Formats: sequence, C-alpha cells, structure tokens
Amino acid sequence: MNSSPLIDQLIEAFRCLPGVGPKSAQRMTLHLLERNREGANKLSKALEEAIEHVGNCRECRTFTEEELCRICASHSRNQKLCCVVESPADIFAIEQSGTFRGVYFVLMGHLSPIDGIGPEQLGISQLVDKVQSQDIEELIIACNPTVEGDATAYYIAEQFREANVVVSRIAHGVPVGGELEFVDGGTLSHAFSGRKVMESS
Amino acid sequence: MNSSPLIDQLIEAFRCLPGVGPKSAQRMTLHLLERNREGANKLSKALEEAIEHVGNCRECRTFTEEELCRICASHSRNQKLCCVVESPADIFAIEQSGTFRGVYFVLMGHLSPIDGIGPEQLGISQLVDKVQSQDIEELIIACNPTVEGDATAYYIAEQFREANVVVSRIAHGVPVGGELEFVDGGTLSHAFSGRKVMESS
Repeated sequence: MNSSPLIDQLIEAFRCLPGVGPKSAQRMTLHLLERNREGANKLSKALEEAIEHVGNCRECRTFTEEELCRICASHSRNQKLCCVVESPADIFAIEQSGTFRGVYFVLMGHLSPIDGIGPEQLGISQLVDKVQSQDIEELIIACNPTVEGDATAYYIAEQFREANVVVSRIAHGVPVGGELEFVDGGTLSHAFSGRKVMESS
Repeated sequence: MNSSPLIDQLIEAFRCLPGVGPKSAQRMTLHLLERNREGANKLSKALEEAIEHVGNCRECRTFTEEELCRICASHSRNQKLCCVVESPADIFAIEQSGTFRGVYFVLMGHLSPIDGIGPEQLGISQLVDKVQSQDIEELIIACNPTVEGDATAYYIAEQFREANVVVSRIAHGVPVGGELEFVDGGTLSHAFSGRKVMESS
C-alpha cells in the first residue's frame, strides 16, 4: 500500500519508458517530487508539445514539427547524396559521427512480412519518386546489419537496378547483429568510407 | 544537428530523471515518438497531476494528495506505534517487506548543518507534539545507517529522554553505509525484529 493514488499512477506511467522497471519508476517519481518539481513540470510540457506537434518530414520521413526537417531544409547539405536508414535514431548516430553531409530517407522499420510491414509501410515508392525527381546520384543504404536489414537493403537495391543512380551500402565495419544507433562514431566513419556498390543478382 | 527543436527539448527534459544520461534520454524520446505516443501522453498527464496535487500528509509528512495519507487514515494500522524514516521512499521499502503495521513519520532528510537542515526542517517539534497528543507507545527510528542518519537518530532519542515513550532503533542488519530504500524485504524484517531500545547518553 503506497500513500497516494496519484503517485501510484505516476510510477505506472514511467513504466512506458524503455529499460525502466518498477524500482526505477518509483525512484524517478520520488526523486522528482522530492527534489525537482520544476524539472518534472518541464518534462510534462515537453512531452505534451512533442506528442502534439512532432510529425514526419515531407521529404525524408524523419520526426520533425516542421513540414521539412532541419537537414532537408539545410542549404549546406548535398541533396544529391541520400542515405537510407531504418529509424530516426540512426540519423542521430550518423550525425554525431560527423561523417556524412548528404540527406536522409527514413524507412521507419525494415521489411517484416510476419508483422505486416511491406514496401508500402516503408515508403519505398516515395523513395523511388524522390530519387527520380531530385536526380539523386548516390543512394547509400545504411540499414542495420541484421537479417531483416539485409533483406530490406537488397529489396531497395533491386528497385533501382535500371535507374541512373549508384546504390551503395555502408561497409560491415559495424558489428553484425547489432543496432546501428549504438555504434560509436569512429566505426561509423570506417563504415561510410568503406561502402561498396551493390551488384543486383 | 538533430531534426527538430521539440525533440531536442524533450531529450534535454528527460535528463532531469536520476540515472538518465544523453544516450538514454535520446532513446526514451525516440521510443515514445515511434512506438508509444499514448504512453507518453499518459506520462505527461500523470506528471502534471502529481506536481499539481501531491503535497504532504498533515500527520506523517509523506507525499499524498489528500489531507491524510492512506496509511494515517487507515483503521487497520496501529496508531500507537510510529516509525520515523528519512524519506517517502523508505516507507515504500518497509511497506513492501510487510513487516510493520504501525504508522510513519517522515523527516524528509537528515540533520545536516552544512546544508542548513536542522530540527525545524525535519519537523522534530511536530513529532514531539504527535507523540504527546496521540499517546504513542513506541517510536521506532529507521533513519539510514549513515553518519548523518545516526546523528539524527540520537538527536531524536534525546528529545524523548523524559517522555513516557519507548524509543527504539531498527537493528543494523541493514548494510552500513547503504540506503534503506534499496534493501530487500528479508533484511528489513530482521532489522525490525532485532530493534534495540536506545539508551540516552
């Protein structure tokens, strides 16, 4: 029995965060109530605003509250070089490595027929349109080096077999079976510079 | 450069949580946006409600949105037996061990002159009033077994030297130097049953 229903509710609500179990949720709740109500208030407002306003970029499908994300709208990026990633977290990791100056396209997942995720859900036709209409010169595929990521990469490469665009894939310098978002910047730099042109089978 | 100011703001806001660094904050943000916007919404509302409504219990000073917390208002608790703890988190830990059926008094800290925390900040006079007006028979002191907790325990025992109340302290079965809130229920049970009457010096 705890002292208050609202505290129980807040502890339960913290469980929606990844990696947060009952003990951590309780610790977070009491920490905020005891020591940082201002921070809790800011967190509440930031969550509300993000949920209400953050949608997807018209061009690259990443998260943004504008029509175009900061990267797509930037004049200092090479719009002819497009990197395809599975999730916005991958963009964060690549941007932190500082190794890539082109634009992105976010699939928001990978091919997974068992979960009902096919080419439409990944926006592949939007990617094909983008490559054609914007005269993209090179498409760098940076899907995760997992079975599903490999399948997705080959499927995308297949779509551009006849098109006038180089399709490459970042080198497998990144640990196989891992998640791109947790790779360090140095490994990512190697992976970008060691990329290979994909041969369609 | 990330894709959106609102996302940056939310990542920064998550940093107010204990044990959450930049990587975890980013992971939490993207997880909620990608997979659990409903959970994020609930978390935002739960935070707002808790901050707005949760105050302190009139009797025991723990967190509650009512005038009296659930424990102080309960008829099934022994109101003559009062356990003094440093923080509401300690109440959670003791309640989970299921070993104690009395009521609590929360100091919300420990004596720490260097931080300006003296007897007034800990509500010692309120505790003295409570013991007298409610004819409390035993006061079990469950301050953390740290230097400051020990000092606080002795200070409280001293206040009741002339009073008609037994002052005891939970046994040092709990690891010395640790924090009460992380102790397992079994150790806490031993500590409660092995408590010793405090001799005033």
